[in-house]
Amino acid sequence: MTQMAKAKSGKITEQMQAVSAAEHVHPSILMERIASGKVVIPLNKKHSLNKPVGVGYGLRTKVNANIGTSTDYNDLAYEIEKAKVAVNAGADAIMDLSTEGNLSDMRKKIIDEIPAVIGTVPVYQAAVQAIKNKGGLVKMTEEDIFIVLEQQAEEGVDFFTIHSGVTRDSIERLKKQGRLTDIVSRGGSMLTTWMIANDCENPFYQSFDRVLEIARSYDITLSLGDGLRPGSVNDASDRAQIQELIILGELTKRAWEQDVQVIIEGPGHVPLHQIRMNIELQKQLCNQAPFYVLGPLVTDVAPGYDHITSAIGGAMAAWAGADFLCYVTPGEHLKLPNLDDVHQGVIATRIAGHAADIAKGIPQAAEWDHQISKARHDLDWEKQIKLAIDPEHARQLRGEKSPDQPDVCSMCGDYCAIKMVHEALGTEKRS
Amino acid sequence: MTQMAKAKSGKITEQMQAVSAAEHVHPSILMERIASGKVVIPLNKKHSLNKPVGVGYGLRTKVNANIGTSTDYNDLAYEIEKAKVAVNAGADAIMDLSTEGNLSDMRKKIIDEIPAVIGTVPVYQAAVQAIKNKGGLVKMTEEDIFIVLEQQAEEGVDFFTIHSGVTRDSIERLKKQGRLTDIVSRGGSMLTTWMIANDCENPFYQSFDRVLEIARSYDITLSLGDGLRPGSVNDASDRAQIQELIILGELTKRAWEQDVQVIIEGPGHVPLHQIRMNIELQKQLCNQAPFYVLGPLVTDVAPGYDHITSAIGGAMAAWAGADFLCYVTPGEHLKLPNLDDVHQGVIATRIAGHAADIAKGIPQAAEWDHQISKARHDLDWEKQIKLAIDPEHARQLRGEKSPDQPDVCSMCGDYCAIKMVHEALGTEKRS
Repeated sequence: MTQMAKAKSGKITEQMQAVSAAEHVHPSILMERIASGKVVIPLNKKHSLNKPVGVGYGLRTKVNANIGTSTDYNDLAYEIEKAKVAVNAGADAIMDLSTEGNLSDMRKKIIDEIPAVIGTVPVYQAAVQAIKNKGGLVKMTEEDIFIVLEQQAEEGVDFFTIHSGVTRDSIERLKKQGRLTDIVSRGGSMLTTWMIANDCENPFYQSFDRVLEIARSYDITLSLGDGLRPGSVNDASDRAQIQELIILGELTKRAWEQDVQVIIEGPGHVPLHQIRMNIELQKQLCNQAPFYVLGPLVTDVAPGYDHITSAIGGAMAAWAGADFLCYVTPGEHLKLPNLDDVHQGVIATRIAGHAADIAKGIPQAAEWDHQISKARHDLDWEKQIKLAIDPEHARQLRGEKSPDQPDVCSMCGDYCAIKMVHEALGTEKRS
Repeated sequence: MTQMAKAKSGKITEQMQAVSAAEHVHPSILMERIASGKVVIPLNKKHSLNKPVGVGYGLRTKVNANIGTSTDYNDLAYEIEKAKVAVNAGADAIMDLSTEGNLSDMRKKIIDEIPAVIGTVPVYQAAVQAIKNKGGLVKMTEEDIFIVLEQQAEEGVDFFTIHSGVTRDSIERLKKQGRLTDIVSRGGSMLTTWMIANDCENPFYQSFDRVLEIARSYDITLSLGDGLRPGSVNDASDRAQIQELIILGELTKRAWEQDVQVIIEGPGHVPLHQIRMNIELQKQLCNQAPFYVLGPLVTDVAPGYDHITSAIGGAMAAWAGADFLCYVTPGEHLKLPNLDDVHQGVIATRIAGHAADIAKGIPQAAEWDHQISKARHDLDWEKQIKLAIDPEHARQLRGEKSPDQPDVCSMCGDYCAIKMVHEALGTEKRS
């Protein structure tokens, strides 16, 4: 039985207990949310994880970091190192998006060594194998795809991104739309290429029941992918994007009927004023299933700083109800990220998630701010640094230009506002 | 006559013409906005600037960068260098917040060498001189303050931050509030210290007419400072903050009666869900005067990354109607920034402002995104890099992990979604 099946039958599992404690949410409330699909616990039965992670309504916004080899950079050890950097920086989940090298070895290492929820996009492996073994992506068969799903399920992957909304119908709508940037999803473009060349329907849509069977057997959470997500703010919220979302909503219902946990993936590049609408629409069309957003990037003009463009969009999205943020690194649109990019990406995304959690009133979120601000008021630098989201970085910056007097910082020096006011108002320490 | 006086009399000045052209706004519309106080052109009559800058309703969101010596780091040449870095990165205004060294020399050099709107906080100089020459801040006199105002006006400063809302009354309200982080404004804390020690009213409030006389003579824009801005999300939007804002609203009206241009300064640390309300309240209480915000920082927990916490808040604020963003660097709360911090701060703030400009529908804002996305679709890397907000940085990142094939990037390599879709859909170049 999946977590959802157990929740529907009124059983509070060990994993629900753990998530409930971590999130300050009563176990029975959490159970109800899992039963209704508002919350998922992505955890393959074959994967043991000390700290199961809940994703969804009323819980802390979670952060995913993508790692993985590409045809240009294929160093398995370095990608594992990235996963470690991401988890150390506070990522809750890691998606292995490798497309080069021994994909199975890579995944097994990630699942063994990284204490996080693990996700993949199985069509990558099926496509890569078809290219390598059969001489072309278009020679991939439905059977090839399902062999990969079974293999990855057996290895212990917790969630699969499945682009089942890229259908003949939605591709037609895409053509009618006339987009600026067509398709920017790698999985979406693989499937589109395959469907057009073979004049066939998307196998993930056509044989969705077969996907559900595997997902149910292993309790794999399906992350229904947004193959038609906008790749520019110009294309945001267009008919193609919303068409796909409608299809994902239908599939969500079918998945829930089979007790399969579902997450919906969302855009992409979205201007600020369309973000809330996008989140509300997703929640509505997909019956409050958790929403997993990539970005959204609020402008297209900042390659090199897309951890910032997406921190802005991610904060706005999570505040509006998105539950799970996929990090974007400074390297997005330019290159495969390095270790520092990964670190930067996770921290920026955690900042976005936390800012949203304060705004949403997630239990205990604002308490962290309260504690660090008490230390700030008290001019307790050691405590401020320890409580910072990235203590090592904060310590380094403070050390770069250290003050003459240890109780202030070098920006104001003798004219530290906090210190002056302590004296003027005679205020006391807060802790 | 000030720009406001001329606008009220129906005159379109050379400066209005220049701003109108840069902003794609009809001169007569701009003139009306200046007459009503919705837009300002901060430009001291003694300061010549090739490109005058408009700040306010319907215009591109502007970015200010703070530079200046502190008691710990007093290197005039380095601070000038920071101002140059800021302007090269796209800052519209520079505030010189120096508190150490020859303040007048510093200012003159900035005004001479830096092609930007220049602002100061005159009470810093008055306080520093009182400490150096009289042995204590509390020995500063009202006369000392006005001598500094006259001197800086004569030197050509375009806008003054004047903390005239920190009154006996608002300090009482602050005490009744019982804040976590009291006062974090340097100017606010200097004035509070002085007022309490001398048992006197704030001279900028008490003698506001005298401030107005100077401002009118030189057409200095008054940036009415938020001495009681919240220093933690806990303190946001509290009674003390709003009390000060009410006073600033009253003073705005008095300034406009004297044809003095006004900007209102705003918080500070504000959680996401309170930002729109803060902006709308400011616009309401201050009769639509332009709003200049520092941040707002949407969480307190990220020292070392406060350019990101404030890019999130700044984007939200500017979208809601804020007109002018003061940058926050990664060093905020930790140290005086270095050159790279300044660069990072300006870029992050420009991203926030631009994202908001797209959302607000500022003329031509989205066109930039359209152009870069066309280049992205066309896999035209040179054009993408040239159009990036920081081309040098984008080029460097792309070069760090360059792809085997020059038409893609190393993230996806052979599996570039855009390239695959070009082939599958047979799409054409966009430009």
